[in-house]
Amino acid sequence: MKNEKIPYKIYLEENEMPKSWYNVRADMQKKPAPLLNPGTKQPMTAEELSAVFCDELVQQELDDTTPYIEIPEEIRNFYKMYRPSPLVRAYCLEEKLGTPAKIYYKFEGNNTSGSHKLNSAIAQAYYAKKQGLKGVTTETGAGQWGTALSMACSYFDLDCKVFMVKCSYEQKPFRREVMRTYGASVTPSPSETTAIGRKILAEHPGTTGSLGCAISEAVEVAVSSEGYRYVLGSVLNQVLLHQSVIGLETKAALDKYGIKPDIIIGCAGGGSNLGGLIAPFMGEKLRGEADYRIIAVEPASCPSFTRGVYAYDFCDTGMVCPLAKMYTLGSDFIPSANHAGGLRYHGMSSTLSELYDQKLMEATSVTQTDVFQAAEYFARVEGILPAPESSHAIRVAIDEALRCKETGEEKTIVFGLTGTGYFDMVAYEKFHNGEMTDTIPTDEELEAARAKLPR
Amino acid sequence: MKNEKIPYKIYLEENEMPKSWYNVRADMQKKPAPLLNPGTKQPMTAEELSAVFCDELVQQELDDTTPYIEIPEEIRNFYKMYRPSPLVRAYCLEEKLGTPAKIYYKFEGNNTSGSHKLNSAIAQAYYAKKQGLKGVTTETGAGQWGTALSMACSYFDLDCKVFMVKCSYEQKPFRREVMRTYGASVTPSPSETTAIGRKILAEHPGTTGSLGCAISEAVEVAVSSEGYRYVLGSVLNQVLLHQSVIGLETKAALDKYGIKPDIIIGCAGGGSNLGGLIAPFMGEKLRGEADYRIIAVEPASCPSFTRGVYAYDFCDTGMVCPLAKMYTLGSDFIPSANHAGGLRYHGMSSTLSELYDQKLMEATSVTQTDVFQAAEYFARVEGILPAPESSHAIRVAIDEALRCKETGEEKTIVFGLTGTGYFDMVAYEKFHNGEMTDTIPTDEELEAARAKLPR
Repeated sequence: MKNEKIPYKIYLEENEMPKSWYNVRADMQKKPAPLLNPGTKQPMTAEELSAVFCDELVQQELDDTTPYIEIPEEIRNFYKMYRPSPLVRAYCLEEKLGTPAKIYYKFEGNNTSGSHKLNSAIAQAYYAKKQGLKGVTTETGAGQWGTALSMACSYFDLDCKVFMVKCSYEQKPFRREVMRTYGASVTPSPSETTAIGRKILAEHPGTTGSLGCAISEAVEVAVSSEGYRYVLGSVLNQVLLHQSVIGLETKAALDKYGIKPDIIIGCAGGGSNLGGLIAPFMGEKLRGEADYRIIAVEPASCPSFTRGVYAYDFCDTGMVCPLAKMYTLGSDFIPSANHAGGLRYHGMSSTLSELYDQKLMEATSVTQTDVFQAAEYFARVEGILPAPESSHAIRVAIDEALRCKETGEEKTIVFGLTGTGYFDMVAYEKFHNGEMTDTIPTDEELEAARAKLPR
Repeated sequence: MKNEKIPYKIYLEENEMPKSWYNVRADMQKKPAPLLNPGTKQPMTAEELSAVFCDELVQQELDDTTPYIEIPEEIRNFYKMYRPSPLVRAYCLEEKLGTPAKIYYKFEGNNTSGSHKLNSAIAQAYYAKKQGLKGVTTETGAGQWGTALSMACSYFDLDCKVFMVKCSYEQKPFRREVMRTYGASVTPSPSETTAIGRKILAEHPGTTGSLGCAISEAVEVAVSSEGYRYVLGSVLNQVLLHQSVIGLETKAALDKYGIKPDIIIGCAGGGSNLGGLIAPFMGEKLRGEADYRIIAVEPASCPSFTRGVYAYDFCDTGMVCPLAKMYTLGSDFIPSANHAGGLRYHGMSSTLSELYDQKLMEATSVTQTDVFQAAEYFARVEGILPAPESSHAIRVAIDEALRCKETGEEKTIVFGLTGTGYFDMVAYEKFHNGEMTDTIPTDEELEAARAKLPR
């Protein structure tokens, strides 16, 4: 062991846990572009957004000046049930790789939702309850967000209606069953229960759905049901705000031992984990107090950052949501059915998109066979069976550590291990059986998807 | 919150983790009965046992006088990857129940094997490696032990052959896939690969197997393969010794805050979790230093303690293993196919059996619909989706807490939450759909199973 003083797992004491979320937008000179009303092309007002989202979440969505927003006590108490999450020193991985690099990962999988998604779910459920709502609607792809929201709603005794992308609903019956354990209703999307679902089914009979469709259905039900609002598990500013608890805990744990990371790596689908993990570090960078190399890792089969365009786009297939300026592949883009796991959203958080455009962070894409190879390697060495999503970050962390082995540099690498892969064993099985392949969209396919971008 | 000073989760620092296991037999005046050679009916010698088990584990199995046995550094380092496990104060459960009782649970589910089984798996793999073996064989029922052993063998680069009870193999393909991720080979039992498997298949065509059959197959392969030994995940003294890490951590965490439990509750199948959890507390009891109410909870469908007899019995169906004196239902007993989850072994740890016979602990049995009701309640309130096995302890902890509500007593209850139920969603689904029923063996059935007890 290289440094006996640093334990395998750094836990914060309960009183060291963050009492406020950090809002990185407050430190950005050039702010992320606002959401636009798709009809008027004017910035969405709080009033307009309140038809869809809870009032207090709308305030958080629009607030790009307040750096710290207090975490209500009820949410902090819930956090105490499964947080702080450990910051793990990957001693075994370092030894196995033979790298001089020091590797740390923030492990968010030790809760029943199996991922970091619970950090925002409990916040959104809390504000819905505070507003006196009956319930909330949402969509889920891989199922982590739906599970997290079910848990949060159960805790606050709120109704929870989940639209689950049909292919995932069919492939992951156990995810559905966990949500039912928490009292949620789960509908495969597209469904006959909504106007937009019926329209999509009529136009694309036999479709197995997409996140974009499921969002449209969930929003339709929210705005047409008394006492309901819609909640989203990624992409939005409010979600990144809540997820900043990941980065704040990570930074507090590192600071306890005087550790300064050189490289921070996170997987990126809509951006919730990455945005949360990097928040306080990016804040220091924006304020000129420190510098870090920050790397977003996305699937080669859904490469929003690395092959998308930075433009206003629809957030959903049904085009019922506001327009967001983001790195996007076009709202019609659906990753190949061959792609396992999450990270399949066509766009990317506006905040992260703006930071990427300002070259404050890098992005890279990896193929899924490389990702699963890293996942299995990691599982065997560090004992944790990672989610496919998280394994994108593992892949790049390993690659960077191997680069250090070549150069002899003792860099400190921190990556986000967002969750566990217990509900992804179908994908692991494919990998073990040598049946997993890679699908990378062609330039023509991406061009075609972009054709539907709003002008 | 009743006591702000006690955090939701009590973690030990790395340097507070146990450096030795505690061997409760050393403090027992009347020792557990020895294993007998089924042919001679004489106590098994170290030499005889060494044909089946690793040498150092044989020593641990036979040692009933040394109270503390040092945990080798390699094992302690592995423990640091996923331990200490948290001792959780169930504030939310207490509040929801409206009980004056203080409830704590030791949560062993935060590792990829999903249970406490890893504590002994890593020890057994370590000693196998130290002895220069090529690999080990074992059986698994619900799959937790097989998963744990696969992880441990992968860490020490040992081959791992798992015989998985056929019905479980078919119902839990994802468990099998996790084991494969860790490089284990998994064979459904009974199989055509062993003489005893072929015999059982000939006598009972179409059988879906049992733990007793799988043990026989695993032992046969171990003794007939060069460089292999057999390892077992429960029942044996050595396993209870390794699992004492659970109780030692629990006691250290409670001592930190000056907490003395009144009642300690654990689920009991073969006894590994219960024996580990209660070890240091039972030690105090045996030495007359303290008193605790200790409750073993078993399924009504497999009631070894509450309806079994205390006698020498075969440990496996094929009768290839030594005889053990234990509370047993008879080695032919197989719980109804209707029974979900583990805790399905016909017998019980000799050590626990002797302690129970000496009335140093109580036992009770619960039906599975009551268990799943408690499991779902707990999941919604405390956020953790428990394994069916663990939920037996939850059921009784809730019942005891409700009794405190009636009497107004502020008892301190500690129970073992052995694992998570992520691979048990088929059983949860049955419960949600109202399709779960209870099967309690009749007196006649138990009488028939006992007829095969050795004389």
